[in-house]
Amino acid sequence: MDTKKLINALSKTKLASRYFSNVSTETKNKILENISENLKTYKDKIIKENKKDIFYAEKKHLSSALIDRLRLTDKSIEDMISSLKEIESLPDPVGTVISEWTRPSGIRIQKVRVPIGVICMIYESRPNVTIDSTALCIKSGNAVILRGGSEAINSNRVLVKVIKKALKDAGLSTDLVQFIDSPKREIIYKIIKLDNFIDLVIPRGGEKMIKDIRRHSTVPVLSHGKGLCHTYIDKDADIDMAIKVSYNAKVQRPGVCNAMETLLVHRDIANKVLPELSKMYKRAGVELRGCPQTQKILPFVKKATEKDWSTEYLDLILSIKIVNSTEEAIKHINKYGSGHSEAIITENQKEAEKFIKYVDASAVFHNASTRLHDGGVFGLGSEIGISTQKLHARGTMGLNELTTTKYIVYGTGQIRT
Amino acid sequence: MDTKKLINALSKTKLASRYFSNVSTETKNKILENISENLKTYKDKIIKENKKDIFYAEKKHLSSALIDRLRLTDKSIEDMISSLKEIESLPDPVGTVISEWTRPSGIRIQKVRVPIGVICMIYESRPNVTIDSTALCIKSGNAVILRGGSEAINSNRVLVKVIKKALKDAGLSTDLVQFIDSPKREIIYKIIKLDNFIDLVIPRGGEKMIKDIRRHSTVPVLSHGKGLCHTYIDKDADIDMAIKVSYNAKVQRPGVCNAMETLLVHRDIANKVLPELSKMYKRAGVELRGCPQTQKILPFVKKATEKDWSTEYLDLILSIKIVNSTEEAIKHINKYGSGHSEAIITENQKEAEKFIKYVDASAVFHNASTRLHDGGVFGLGSEIGISTQKLHARGTMGLNELTTTKYIVYGTGQIRT
Repeated sequence: MDTKKLINALSKTKLASRYFSNVSTETKNKILENISENLKTYKDKIIKENKKDIFYAEKKHLSSALIDRLRLTDKSIEDMISSLKEIESLPDPVGTVISEWTRPSGIRIQKVRVPIGVICMIYESRPNVTIDSTALCIKSGNAVILRGGSEAINSNRVLVKVIKKALKDAGLSTDLVQFIDSPKREIIYKIIKLDNFIDLVIPRGGEKMIKDIRRHSTVPVLSHGKGLCHTYIDKDADIDMAIKVSYNAKVQRPGVCNAMETLLVHRDIANKVLPELSKMYKRAGVELRGCPQTQKILPFVKKATEKDWSTEYLDLILSIKIVNSTEEAIKHINKYGSGHSEAIITENQKEAEKFIKYVDASAVFHNASTRLHDGGVFGLGSEIGISTQKLHARGTMGLNELTTTKYIVYGTGQIRT
Repeated sequence: MDTKKLINALSKTKLASRYFSNVSTETKNKILENISENLKTYKDKIIKENKKDIFYAEKKHLSSALIDRLRLTDKSIEDMISSLKEIESLPDPVGTVISEWTRPSGIRIQKVRVPIGVICMIYESRPNVTIDSTALCIKSGNAVILRGGSEAINSNRVLVKVIKKALKDAGLSTDLVQFIDSPKREIIYKIIKLDNFIDLVIPRGGEKMIKDIRRHSTVPVLSHGKGLCHTYIDKDADIDMAIKVSYNAKVQRPGVCNAMETLLVHRDIANKVLPELSKMYKRAGVELRGCPQTQKILPFVKKATEKDWSTEYLDLILSIKIVNSTEEAIKHINKYGSGHSEAIITENQKEAEKFIKYVDASAVFHNASTRLHDGGVFGLGSEIGISTQKLHARGTMGLNELTTTKYIVYGTGQIRT
């Protein structure tokens, strides 16, 4: 795909997005319904195309984890459909009046939610992102440019056909969803410089890929952040609760961003929680690494190095540090944490308040597991990720975060004097 | 200032910002009061230092407009003080609960406003920005790094002394406000790569400077946008109102971003408004440039070129285009406009609604002057600028836009299952 062809495609998408920003909720839901229907109708075709990607991936000896993420089954297509149904059922953010007031001069001001415009998704192997992201963008009134991983190109091609048919059958321009049908990496660097045609880039993938896009993009970037999450067990913690929550935060699903990577324990309670907790972790296959004080209580534990405190394991590994105070816990978190999700377990309101106030993160939990940081759990419906940046969106991101605002001012001839 | 010294200074500021994010409204107001007092006490000293900058600026034959922006007088110091008083009187955004709800599991979720952290202001000649920006950052709980124009370095140095004394007298760390005391431009390119220490860069100045910072910064950038604003007089406009508002939008203060640059007039009403309006513009010294149809009605008007439609004159120059419909006006605005402020004058609700919906801008005015797009006029108190970007803040930006959010989750031992 040469630059001229790319610009031509994107300018069509931009144009289509103008009209689409004001289509009714009914029409947008109709598109989502059509996609669901088409996924059912073309299920066999989709799985056949996906098999080509699997074949090439195996031939190239890609990792089994990657091949697993790449594979589409009856079940994964059903999951796409239920995700579509869920997004359909969510309220449409577009047109919501956030605030409204009248000034002494008589002008009435409304601040309303409007779509961002054209959103570019850059993602890796999982083909379901093609459907999920498109559904979120459509429901929030945005056009979308899709650039999936080269290893999923056959799957994505057929999924985009399914989407385009759904648009056409709803009477809308197929330019609203633009698929970048090129396996070459260089195309990404061209796209993220086209700020005249794209309003927002959302990269989903590894930390390195996201950093790279941030560094080169002239289009604003909104991204899912790395999660180096802590749980701090205060001296006044309920011991049973501390054990239950710390176990859950590490073990329930260790490979995700809101799982705990480091456990901080107040020295006055360490002897009461660590022996029992370490037994449970051991049974679950968790490898423990500890500071020298931890090693005194749990002699079998490997020494944690400086590198451990700043590592997002995403695995059944946990580093443990004993601290002298809530202040020390906060300091450790603000130094090594990624600003994602942080928890304190305590019955002491004063310590809890201190932790909540001074920990710099997108979400702070008092007596609850960091694993709860999730759009679904929070009751926001679907999410496109959890932002650890501070501008535009922080924490779990859903439909609202795919919108911007517009001031509408109603006057009767008012001027500036 | 070498890189090591710079990083050392910024890391102190970052550290100071942690504590400052939770100081009371009273303390923050006390700092603002202290600055006001110090401005009064050291007025003569400030004006003396400013005279050095003026002397060098004149010696270097800088433009009289720049020297004018650079000059501090009794009046400009009084203006700084009243701006400080205004910011003092505004509600503190920090700690505001934006939303709060409880989930079936029993967790209670709050979304609260918190400071962004460390904000870096990069600006040009006007030394009052040193005081105004610092005041806005302090009131919103942020630390601030100031990098003013090299031509204002003596003025800024003394103003920063005034600020640091105010911080010290309120019992706070003087590291909260960091002045980059270097006239070299290269330092800017070092600063905007230090994303470990700075959370947000706000450039204020020319379009080229802002674009340059956007292109090189690895820190998120929030900037005041260019204003290529239109007023569209619909065929169903109230003629007197159309003339009054269009005159105001161009003439009241032509050098600012929310002034009108292009007037669009429906062909059916052009004969009724243009002759009278052009007389008024002529009396005010406005140079008119028109499309061929405009020239038929106003034969003395110079021809507008393609370049005129995309020029932000910031001067007593106006381009005029006659259009066949609201649709054509919208198309022109979405092609040439900068997404700042756009107005329609009409008594026809349907045309107004169409314009409001399909014009892509931070603020859309129905029967009112684009000049009204201003934090003060909107009742938001002070503003740090008007954003034409779509992420984080769009339109006039005040204290709220210098904050981010944090989820606080209160549980009783809830875990993810």
